[in-house]
Amino acid sequence: MKFATYSANGQVYYGAATDAGMIALSPRFPAWPTLLDVIREGGLDQLAVAAADQPVTHRDVRFEMVLPNARRILCVGVNFPDRNAEYKDGSEQPKYMSLFPRFASGFTGHNRPLIRPPESHMLDYEGEVAIVIGKGGRRIAQADAYDHIAALTICNEGTIRDWVRHAKFNVTQGKNWDNSGAIGPWLVPFDDPAQLDTARIITRVNGDIRQDDVLSRMMHPIRREIEYISTFMTLESGDVIVTGTPTGSGARLNPPQYLKPGDVVEVEVTGIGTLRNTIEDEQP
Amino acid sequence: MKFATYSANGQVYYGAATDAGMIALSPRFPAWPTLLDVIREGGLDQLAVAAADQPVTHRDVRFEMVLPNARRILCVGVNFPDRNAEYKDGSEQPKYMSLFPRFASGFTGHNRPLIRPPESHMLDYEGEVAIVIGKGGRRIAQADAYDHIAALTICNEGTIRDWVRHAKFNVTQGKNWDNSGAIGPWLVPFDDPAQLDTARIITRVNGDIRQDDVLSRMMHPIRREIEYISTFMTLESGDVIVTGTPTGSGARLNPPQYLKPGDVVEVEVTGIGTLRNTIEDEQP
Repeated sequence: MKFATYSANGQVYYGAATDAGMIALSPRFPAWPTLLDVIREGGLDQLAVAAADQPVTHRDVRFEMVLPNARRILCVGVNFPDRNAEYKDGSEQPKYMSLFPRFASGFTGHNRPLIRPPESHMLDYEGEVAIVIGKGGRRIAQADAYDHIAALTICNEGTIRDWVRHAKFNVTQGKNWDNSGAIGPWLVPFDDPAQLDTARIITRVNGDIRQDDVLSRMMHPIRREIEYISTFMTLESGDVIVTGTPTGSGARLNPPQYLKPGDVVEVEVTGIGTLRNTIEDEQP
Repeated sequence: MKFATYSANGQVYYGAATDAGMIALSPRFPAWPTLLDVIREGGLDQLAVAAADQPVTHRDVRFEMVLPNARRILCVGVNFPDRNAEYKDGSEQPKYMSLFPRFASGFTGHNRPLIRPPESHMLDYEGEVAIVIGKGGRRIAQADAYDHIAALTICNEGTIRDWVRHAKFNVTQGKNWDNSGAIGPWLVPFDDPAQLDTARIITRVNGDIRQDDVLSRMMHPIRREIEYISTFMTLESGDVIVTGTPTGSGARLNPPQYLKPGDVVEVEVTGIGTLRNTIEDEQP
């Protein structure tokens, strides 16, 4: 079962995504106006029951960022070793992960354009798995970490690469451009460790594979991310962790290849689906 | 007129702060349940009218973080030149400001304790002026920037200093500890450029002056902050910008002096007031 936020006939809904279209669910759960409310109330199971064997409500929809009112989105920096590097003893691995918040307002939905601004043409992709916290907590042990995940989704953690380097200590201004990234297409409930432990992530630009790795190779595994973040802040239901990208972003290619209008970026993750975005120049 | 968020008798209110106590206003504006709603609806003037000549409602109150549901808080890194450094031609000034988000959840209110966690005893203060955006906008010109400020407040941008250095590119994990900072005591409506241009900021620890500077010396003035941030993201009503701290944090002293239980930190800003916090160790 997959749950999306979408617009149809000028109104925003959430519902179950099927190959034939959306089964609208938000009209049936007025106490939960958004998917974030569903997550906070632990209601994904109830959505699944409500959607079973129901007919499709909307066929012609526009995907929205899957949790448009998410309050806290924390992103982990590059989190996979370089396949070409010598990596025999792990000694090059940084002890701590790099972390940066992104505001929900910077993300668009599936099948929607990422916007290249006039200030920079260095718009780059980063394919990542995102987890949505279900049960909150502080100082969560790695062994318990998966119990705190409600759902999975996909993030194209799109970046204005040169603005990431404006300041010495923080990447904020390269990571928060309006409509520079996407999260979706939908949430997939998390109930089996294998959904993460055996997943593969592939990013394609115009069909060419640019990133391709397996989550089991993460330098800072997702269990550790939850442990580490919850050391300093109480994780809350509805928090999103974007778990880190493999190598192979456009900036690392020789010569670098940034996204340009007309390009199509797809981020595919085993068991979740494919997040697809086009690129457009910002309209003056 | 000053507007605070506070608790009394176990309930959260907002109201006008006077020397004698609080004039409750939230019960009179049910369509605006929080100060953030007031800001978004441009309602500070209406609050002032409603509070005029009213009797005090609550005398024994607990201050809350002044905008506890603020969605986006952007902090500017150190923003005042070192008084002792050679600074004749401005050549050492970085071209761009350092920026990092903090989540509202990490801030407490006036007169409440900042919490020193067991993981680190390097809890440090940073006194700063915070501005609250009234009218949103994208690519705001410096000349128009002040028109977008609704109110001012004070931030103790408390930091767990060693965790700021965990990762190379981001300070996130040293800046987002639960109850490590404070914002308040109240909002002061902004209607005169002099409120910022002639303001002085002083931080005291147990009465000793540790930071003391004037906003007119900022390396990246507040007008420029608004211009720069709104280049990459559309500023929205209710966004908070914490505008940067003077030199003199505890980490810069020789030897460094971090905050310890029993200390009292005060951040005083001309025309706004004094944000006061005590320090406590986290309860096991």
